[in-house]
Amino acid sequence: MKLSQKEYPQNAEILCIGSELLLGNILNSNAQWLAEELLALGINHYRQCVVGDNINRIEEAVIEASNRCSFLLTTGGLGPTPDDLTTEAIARAFKTPLEGNELLWKEIQKRIKSQGKKTAENNKKQTFFPKGAEIIPNPKGTAPGIIWSPKPGFTVITLPGVPSEMKTMWNATVSKWLQGQRLSEVRFASKVLRFAGIAESNLAEELSDLLNKSNPTIAPYAGMGDLKLRITASGATLDEASELIKPYETQIRERMGDFCYGSDNDCLASVVINLLRERKETISFAESCTGGGLGNSLASIPGASKVFWGGVTAYQNSIKQSLLKVSSNILEIHGAVSEEVVKEMAINVRSSFCTDWAISVSGVAGPNGGTKSKPVGLVHFGIVGPNHCEATQQFFGEHLGREEIQRLSISYCLNQLRLILINRS
Amino acid sequence: MKLSQKEYPQNAEILCIGSELLLGNILNSNAQWLAEELLALGINHYRQCVVGDNINRIEEAVIEASNRCSFLLTTGGLGPTPDDLTTEAIARAFKTPLEGNELLWKEIQKRIKSQGKKTAENNKKQTFFPKGAEIIPNPKGTAPGIIWSPKPGFTVITLPGVPSEMKTMWNATVSKWLQGQRLSEVRFASKVLRFAGIAESNLAEELSDLLNKSNPTIAPYAGMGDLKLRITASGATLDEASELIKPYETQIRERMGDFCYGSDNDCLASVVINLLRERKETISFAESCTGGGLGNSLASIPGASKVFWGGVTAYQNSIKQSLLKVSSNILEIHGAVSEEVVKEMAINVRSSFCTDWAISVSGVAGPNGGTKSKPVGLVHFGIVGPNHCEATQQFFGEHLGREEIQRLSISYCLNQLRLILINRS
Repeated sequence: MKLSQKEYPQNAEILCIGSELLLGNILNSNAQWLAEELLALGINHYRQCVVGDNINRIEEAVIEASNRCSFLLTTGGLGPTPDDLTTEAIARAFKTPLEGNELLWKEIQKRIKSQGKKTAENNKKQTFFPKGAEIIPNPKGTAPGIIWSPKPGFTVITLPGVPSEMKTMWNATVSKWLQGQRLSEVRFASKVLRFAGIAESNLAEELSDLLNKSNPTIAPYAGMGDLKLRITASGATLDEASELIKPYETQIRERMGDFCYGSDNDCLASVVINLLRERKETISFAESCTGGGLGNSLASIPGASKVFWGGVTAYQNSIKQSLLKVSSNILEIHGAVSEEVVKEMAINVRSSFCTDWAISVSGVAGPNGGTKSKPVGLVHFGIVGPNHCEATQQFFGEHLGREEIQRLSISYCLNQLRLILINRS
Repeated sequence: MKLSQKEYPQNAEILCIGSELLLGNILNSNAQWLAEELLALGINHYRQCVVGDNINRIEEAVIEASNRCSFLLTTGGLGPTPDDLTTEAIARAFKTPLEGNELLWKEIQKRIKSQGKKTAENNKKQTFFPKGAEIIPNPKGTAPGIIWSPKPGFTVITLPGVPSEMKTMWNATVSKWLQGQRLSEVRFASKVLRFAGIAESNLAEELSDLLNKSNPTIAPYAGMGDLKLRITASGATLDEASELIKPYETQIRERMGDFCYGSDNDCLASVVINLLRERKETISFAESCTGGGLGNSLASIPGASKVFWGGVTAYQNSIKQSLLKVSSNILEIHGAVSEEVVKEMAINVRSSFCTDWAISVSGVAGPNGGTKSKPVGLVHFGIVGPNHCEATQQFFGEHLGREEIQRLSISYCLNQLRLILINRS
């Protein structure tokens, strides 16, 4: 049984190239990211493949895909080293010579020089492309990609394996190019709604009547401390598709209330920053188990400096006493992971940073240091602001790793502050 | 060009089945887990594939794989619902009828009943297998798998998509079965070396004579601020393979000197923590543009509390003055992103936290706030310790995003401290 291209109308495949994937060295997060993007563009996607850094096997996989799909997206194998073979393998698959691009070579040399580094002869390899291929600029690195149609009805698009470079090139060039292909008469619109404070299974249960629809389709996606719902609609025009989404978005927002914290590219940190900016209020942090991660989550958002004053990370009890003025008495009686201590931490950091709000975090991130009364995964939080002083605690479970407990702690307290702020305005 | 099974001696492929993977709904962690297991068993593994819950496409992928590999491991599609089609597709691929297993059906009914649940008619589907297939018991769920050789030199092994069930069945049955096959006389060993302060292209150039070898193979992998080299060798025994790696590891370490900072699961933060622990020294941070990320990189390592005292994040000039005692004069004359300011930040945080070492960071992380003399991507660092006080600067390039500049800043200063520490001991 052999399906022909006819039975696979206008569709994309993903081919991830890299022996590190076959060795189980890394998770294939690129494939997941691209799959979501293809869905958002309304492009059918029936197959993903992974091969190693072997020119014969890359070539074989490319030829096979060219008989099944209209668009092949590859990731990886564009670097300067001898095991980066993607471009060469694709050119060979369609018996096309590689041609050097002098202009690009000059640009890359200039960029590497401006960073005070030396150009390696290897880098030149990255400026050779199959004859006729269009170049996808790489604003973040030295590995450009290509968009190339070596035969009718088939286009191969190459992207680097480094996720940040791959995403930037997708957003700047590939996504727009694909949209310009008028893949079908149908236009797709999509909207992501973001949730906090509720589990995926509960969200799915609350909205079960909506999850089996066909236009729009509504599907939840969950990650660690991150829950979203994607609404995708199709119509004759983009406007028509968007109009189909609106009543569902309204209905979901109404039914889920404050559990829905934002949409599309929002994150809890950006939402909190915006709420504080609107109120012209500022914030500081006193962190123990998160070690600076809470501050960093705000600092990673452009414009954070409008509301984020800074913080103290007190990883030792002595620092909680000296820098955050937590009394030794309270530390001794209640221990560092306690309601009393997080309250003092928040009150005192707020006063020394002269901010409107302050959040404190102290918990047991593990893997060691847990006790029966204070197990790994137990975290206390203090939130202090104008006429507000509260301490809460969460037990995230002993089965989680250190970084997950830190990440969940950060999401939890940012969401708590968001709830306080929206219920005040 | 078509590779035949001959060119793929004794090898496995992984086929993951599930539309949720093609929709980008979940990360394919099963493929990574199985890839690592195959490596540990010394079984070559040249390809992974993902298809959705579509019987034709599953059948097509199985037939293709049967012409390339000796063992096909599938995950997913074994459940009771109509979109679970793996067993049916495999039987159809080899024109073999399905046969019900009455004994298993009784067992499953009993198990479901004992959990106080009702048996659905759907569950019966899970007790039908291709004639001649061996059943893999599923101690954790109702979906058994099969080990089946429908043609000479090819065996298909089906596993459920739920990771805990898949892993349990692998460990209890599949792994042992594969080991009993005496696949090959060859065993594999592998070692990762990690580098900092050098670009991938320069590393590859320095070691170009080693990168085309076949046993061991030596290949570099680069991420954002992360560069590693994997050495993989094969031999008649694991010891023999490991022995082959050693002289190359020694040679690479000698040739690359301090650029090599560690191996396998090391990261810069864990290496710095270990160096400080050995010396019984402590550290604190004064962060501006990294917003707490430097502290968090240490805090994410178990045991960080032995050396990490904490830090001050001073995101505003006023905080640099009040909390870090940077003089307003220096801030005015030189600006916050300057050698003079990072020196004061590091000196003062070190003294208020009473630590042996202190690192400070102040830079322009963008996207706004850059000027001609202080562009986005320019970051200053201070490192102060016993008889040591230095300020350095790095320009990471204006093309990078905020988070990348933060990440590269953290790697850069941890590596600088590492170099200082190893050159002292």
